Amino acid sequence: MIASPHMRAHTEYLTFRTPELRQFINITPKVQAALQKSRIEEGMILVSAMHITAGVWVNDAEDGLLADIEEWLEHLAPFNESYRHHRTGETNGDAHLKSLLVHHQVIVPVTVGKLDLGPWQQVYYAEFDGQRPKRVIIKVMGE
Amino acid sequence: MIASPHMRAHTEYLTFRTPELRQFINITPKVQAALQKSRIEEGMILVSAMHITAGVWVNDAEDGLLADIEEWLEHLAPFNESYRHHRTGETNGDAHLKSLLVHHQVIVPVTVGKLDLGPWQQVYYAEFDGQRPKRVIIKVMGE
Amino acid sequence: MIASPHMRAHTEYLTFRTPELRQFINITPKVQAALQKSRIEEGMILVSAMHITAGVWVNDAEDGLLADIEEWLEHLAPFNESYRHHRTGETNGDAHLKSLLVHHQVIVPVTVGKLDLGPWQQVYYAEFDGQRPKRVIIKVMGE
Repeated sequence: MIASPHMRAHTEYLTFRTPELRQFINITPKVQAALQKSRIEEGMILVSAMHITAGVWVNDAEDGLLADIEEWLEHLAPFNESYRHHRTGETNGDAHLKSLLVHHQVIVPVTVGKLDLGPWQQVYYAEFDGQRPKRVIIKVMGE
Repeated sequence: MIASPHMRAHTEYLTFRTPELRQFINITPKVQAALQKSRIEEGMILVSAMHITAGVWVNDAEDGLLADIEEWLEHLAPFNESYRHHRTGETNGDAHLKSLLVHHQVIVPVTVGKLDLGPWQQVYYAEFDGQRPKRVIIKVMGE
Repeated sequence: MIASPHMRAHTEYLTFRTPELRQFINITPKVQAALQKSRIEEGMILVSAMHITAGVWVNDAEDGLLADIEEWLEHLAPFNESYRHHRTGETNGDAHLKSLLVHHQVIVPVTVGKLDLGPWQQVYYAEFDGQRPKRVIIKVMGE
């Protein structure tokens, strides 16, 4: 139990412009860097995509698994020309569904000044409609 | 970086009784109103369904997409008379699965007194078993 | 609206070693116990799996539904020998996908010293690759 008269917040924005339409990027070092700048010892870090065609998840940094995830997402939320959303001129209906499926945000706990992640947990940014600038917010809140 | 001696919390409850069994409602204005009442400048807002047959997500306010999402959810978590859950007398097994799929809550970051959402991000309440009163909690926490 | 000079954080870790490979455990009493120890009145509790083959969700404590969920997850993210991830020697590719599907964490709001859950909401730990020690973090933050 830790008590402190000061609650603090520290906010950063990342911008990605991935060369590929779909790309999964390990952003754990960037979350770690934001935590260090915040000097917060106890709290939570919100890592949240600011676009509706991208996701953020916590899972393993293993290339085979990442390829499995991509194939699985394409199976469950496939690219399809006939989405109603495409009547707006867009072609990224599948990217919206993939974002809903994996969720667009995670909370990383902070304990004694460190990311309190399990041994294999890494924070990933999942781009489903890249090749243009996309933002992610990292917000550290605590004391 | 902002430091303040005061952490505050502000809680509101919304009640929906949708005319349709399934309905997706843009509740961003209600989240915005709760933030204004809280007068919190830096923090997070939890928006969370209080029932187990509803979801909350952040995505686009585009009617074609909403119809795509409904069709897609029905494909992945279909209505089916034979769910074991229905032995309790319920008929809403699919609504539980849909709620698990889209998740029942989001966190909206607050920065300099504003909802820190991307340009197309809107907060949606997703009713999967309506026509009766259902609640959503909005909890603003920060300083 | 509540104002207080003290923000506090209280952290606990649960360890599970389930007898079955897959098992769903109602951990609401453990979340409640952590809240009581924290003596926090207003805030949020993060309940988050620390492994990448487990999930945490909020839904109904009904055995038929739990069996439906297990069958449904196996349908959407099936065990399959041919996942690329298995080239590492693992056999738990499906557990990673199931974890992504249901999400690995929830936030439970705390209001006037109580878990602010709806009438049927229970917090579940979902083990998808058990029979070995796995951890869950419970972090209470508030005042």
